[in-house]
This record gives sequence, structure tokens and C-alpha cells, in this order.
Amino acid sequence: MAIVILRNDEKTGLWKAALKKHRPDIPVYGPGDAFDPGEVKMAAVWKHPPGSLSAFPNLLGIHGLGAGVDFIMEDETISPEIPVMRVVDPYLASDMAEFVLAEIAGILKRLQRYKYNEASALWQPEAYKRFSEVTVGIMGLGELGLVVAASLRSIGMSVVGWTRNSTPEVAFPVYSGISGRTDFLKQAEVLVCLLPLTPQTRGILNTEVFRNLPFGASLINVARGPLLVDDDLLHALDQGLLSEACLDVFHNEPLPGEHPFWKHPSVHITPHIASVSHPDSVAPQILSNYNKLLTGDTPANLVSRKAGY
Amino acid sequence: MAIVILRNDEKTGLWKAALKKHRPDIPVYGPGDAFDPGEVKMAAVWKHPPGSLSAFPNLLGIHGLGAGVDFIMEDETISPEIPVMRVVDPYLASDMAEFVLAEIAGILKRLQRYKYNEASALWQPEAYKRFSEVTVGIMGLGELGLVVAASLRSIGMSVVGWTRNSTPEVAFPVYSGISGRTDFLKQAEVLVCLLPLTPQTRGILNTEVFRNLPFGASLINVARGPLLVDDDLLHALDQGLLSEACLDVFHNEPLPGEHPFWKHPSVHITPHIASVSHPDSVAPQILSNYNKLLTGDTPANLVSRKAGY
Repeated sequence: MAIVILRNDEKTGLWKAALKKHRPDIPVYGPGDAFDPGEVKMAAVWKHPPGSLSAFPNLLGIHGLGAGVDFIMEDETISPEIPVMRVVDPYLASDMAEFVLAEIAGILKRLQRYKYNEASALWQPEAYKRFSEVTVGIMGLGELGLVVAASLRSIGMSVVGWTRNSTPEVAFPVYSGISGRTDFLKQAEVLVCLLPLTPQTRGILNTEVFRNLPFGASLINVARGPLLVDDDLLHALDQGLLSEACLDVFHNEPLPGEHPFWKHPSVHITPHIASVSHPDSVAPQILSNYNKLLTGDTPANLVSRKAGY
Repeated sequence: MAIVILRNDEKTGLWKAALKKHRPDIPVYGPGDAFDPGEVKMAAVWKHPPGSLSAFPNLLGIHGLGAGVDFIMEDETISPEIPVMRVVDPYLASDMAEFVLAEIAGILKRLQRYKYNEASALWQPEAYKRFSEVTVGIMGLGELGLVVAASLRSIGMSVVGWTRNSTPEVAFPVYSGISGRTDFLKQAEVLVCLLPLTPQTRGILNTEVFRNLPFGASLINVARGPLLVDDDLLHALDQGLLSEACLDVFHNEPLPGEHPFWKHPSVHITPHIASVSHPDSVAPQILSNYNKLLTGDTPANLVSRKAGY
């Protein structure tokens, strides 16, 4: 009985160490290790190679190593019967809230613009906006969206929210569904996207949405790259519909060097670092779920295969 | 009886309009107007040409048009007997607090660095720091410093303060004088300078101070350019003593195009816009002081000529 870690980056060792630190008795393997695939009861994955999980015949469950599990849903080789779990890291939400706050504060005070101006030694004061003068629209009110909203409201910003289905009971206006979307968008001077990536949300950040925002609004996408139609964004920026876009996620990561986002003065690129799961703080919940799989108990933070998140 | 406005920028018209809006009956002149200098009872000034106030023989007082009045103190042609007043704009402090928060959040999340990396299409994730993991040291605890401290503490940052003389009663550690400076500096992972510019503070941000900060600390100067020894900062950055510097103020403004700050990747330049006095919100206090000068009452927000602020 063992856990296998499959990731598309160089962090397999970090995760292995974190799991071993909390439970030295459980074998944890990575792709380079020699082991019997039949021994593996749980796979802990982050953007694993599609199809790679079929190597493990006795898998009881698949644990995503972050908040988003779209890469698991998109791997059609995975049986729909197998339980999928995701990480709910308390820091994931608060880190995201700090990052979004930093980006919005930068937009309001024009900091990314001034940094861009430095390359040409351009001294050009622009008017700033106060926190209390902006309304932020948050698309997606899951764990992350609610914490981001609370954080922004605590420093004086106005917040409106949009969800596809549910309408959580919160202290700010929430709109839902297609019918509520226009009323939501027309208030969002900064649009923050925190939606999960599903077949229904893919490409949701498009020209139609940008046209409904207040003229000159800004966009922050900290969810998943394919939520955004890249060309629609470039067009909206060049038309002046949008002023600025802070993007932390992309269709392909790392963002290819020839992508037009890199050279656009109003696109601010961060390398998928808004909120990073820390192996050490997340390891206990993964190990607890592993234990539940072995004993037949219901694991925590199960993903709905139907909803896709 | 009239007011004259003398500024070194293009905003004389804005200020004239704001004063006239509140008191259409008081004549307000600018440098281009035809008027009798003997009529002028108060000068409202921002970086006026030194010596220019001697044209007005019947001046009862000089009102600075911002929080800092160093340019008045440095004009040796002004009689030490004449009352000098400054602006205490409630928004000046809260705007400054928002700006400082934005810069610190950017430093912790590496946003200025990522913006710099864009020019070379460089995708390079770096570790971020949480708000709760940083201690900010604030030099200068006047109206601005206290509001900045409260704002940073409200979002979870730790704050220590330093003053030259007084020790205000506040809920965070405050050090004072030369004797307390080292203990203050060694805690300040981000050093925020909000000191007034006086003969005692000129050049206070120098190598000796940088050496006492934690290795790799950052500097934010939002007070006055001459507080900083430019070469000492460049040296400290290149040695790694300091990681980043956010500068909003400079010895010469606009910062000359050939200044090495422009090209330095770790210097973040903003064009003196951290906190800008809004003519409309400040006009009433200037007019009220004008009235007090005429009636012989004590004006509000008098500057101590001895202290220099």
C-alpha cells in the first residue's frame, strides 16, 4: 500500500518529503522510483500526463494537489467511478486574497503602468483612485471568492458577486445565472475571475462579457487560463473597452515567449503564483484522505464529477 | 486684500478655481494676472521660485499647498517672523496609507519584479511573503506615519516606528532618537520613510542606515527626495544589502532621464503621486486661515519655524 506523486513540474521531491515527514511509515513514490504499480492505492497529482494513472490497477482514489482539479476531469482515461479529492488549504484562500488585493491596489495607484514607463524614463503622473471609489466584481463565490470578497471589503472596496447557480448568503450583492450576469458586469470596474474551469466556463471571459463591463474596466484572472479568450482580451484592450489585465494563468504555462501578452503594456503577467499550495500545510489532509480510502470512510473535499469541481 | 498663488507646475488655475468656488468675493491672483502686489495679504505656494515672495510688501502669512513646507523654510529671503501654515488634508494621510500598502503588497508578491521581467518574456516564479510575515519600520510618526501604521496593522502586518524626538502613545513598538535607531532598523524588513525634510534629516537614508536593516530589506521613500543619498542606495542594492526600493520623491523632479534610477531593475519609480492635495477639499482650510490672518486670530496648522515642519 503506497502513494504515488505525479506532477508536471520539479516539485515532486518537495511533496514526497512533506508526506514522509508526517507519516514516515507510508511508502511514497515518484516517477523515477522503482516500485510495484499494484502497490499504489492513491495518486496525488498536479497536471499529470493524461493516461498515466492507468498504470495503477488498484487505485482507490486520486487526490489533486491544488484547489483546481480540471486536469483530472479532462483526463478521459480516468474511470468516472473513482473518488477525486482536492486540497482545501486555508492559506490558499488567504494567499489568493492578498494577491488580488495587491493587484487591485496596483491598478488603482497605477503602479504597473509606472513600472512599464520606467523602461523609457517616462515621468507621467496619472490620477489615482481611492479604495473606496472602486467596485470589484467577483465571478465565482467558492472558498476562494468569499475570502477574497471579505478581504477587499475590509479595506473599503465595494464588492458585487456572481455565481452560476447558488446564491450564498453574504453581506454584498450577489447575482446568479445568465439572467443576472449583465446587472453584475455593468457594476464591475475590476472583474476578478475565480471560477473553476469546466466545459461550461471555458472561454467565459470573452468579448460579450467585456462589452458589458463599465468602459475602461480592468480584468484579473487568477483562476485558469482557458477561461479567457486571449484574442478577445487583446481586442478589448486595444479598443479601450478594458484598461488593464492582470493575468496569473494561461492556456499554456509557462506562457510561450512569442505570445503577444508579453509585449502588451496593459497586460501584467505573473507566473501562476497568486496562491501556491504549501506541501507542509497540506500534507496532513492528503494523508487523512488516504487513510479514509483504505478504511472505506468517505474522504473529505470530494469533487463532484458531475459539476467538475 | 487678495491671495496670490505661486506654484512650479501647471496647477495654479485649478487652485484658483477651487478658492474662488468657495469664496467668489476674495480676489485670487496668479503670476500671469495684472494686480497690485501691495494688495496681497496671503501667498499660497508650492515650490515657488525662491525670493519671489519679497514682491509682496503687505504679506500677513504664507500657506503651503501640501503637507511638506521645506521649500518655504529653505527660502532665506522669507522673514522668520511671518506665519507659515501647511495643509492638513484628511485624504493626504489616507491616500498615503493606501499608496504605501499598495507598494508593500507589490514587494511581498514580487509584482514590480514580474512587471520588469515582462520586457524579456521571463517566466520566473519566486516565493511570495504573506502580510503577516513582514515587519514594516516607519520613520516619522506625524499625521501621515500614524495613519500609515494603522492601515498596515489592520491588514495583518507588524509595525515598528521611529521618531526623532517624541514617543507617541501607540499600540506598536516605537523607538526614538539616535539611541533607539539601531534597534528600530534591525527589525524593519520594509523601511518606510515619512520624515519631514529639515537640515537634521537631509541625507538620513544612507549607507549607515541601510547596513543596520535586515539583509535584503526594502525601502519606500514617500517623503522628500533629499532625505536619500542616491549613490548609497544604488550601492546597497548592488551589494544585496537592499532588495528593492520604491521611490516617489527625488532630489530633482521630474527625475532627469539620465539618472541611474530609471534603468535599475530594483528601483521602482513613481512620479510624486503617492498622495496629492485635492484643491477642492483643501480650499476651505486655506480660506479659513486667510480670514484668521486678516482678523488677527491664530491660524490653524501653523508650522514651527524652529523645527522646520
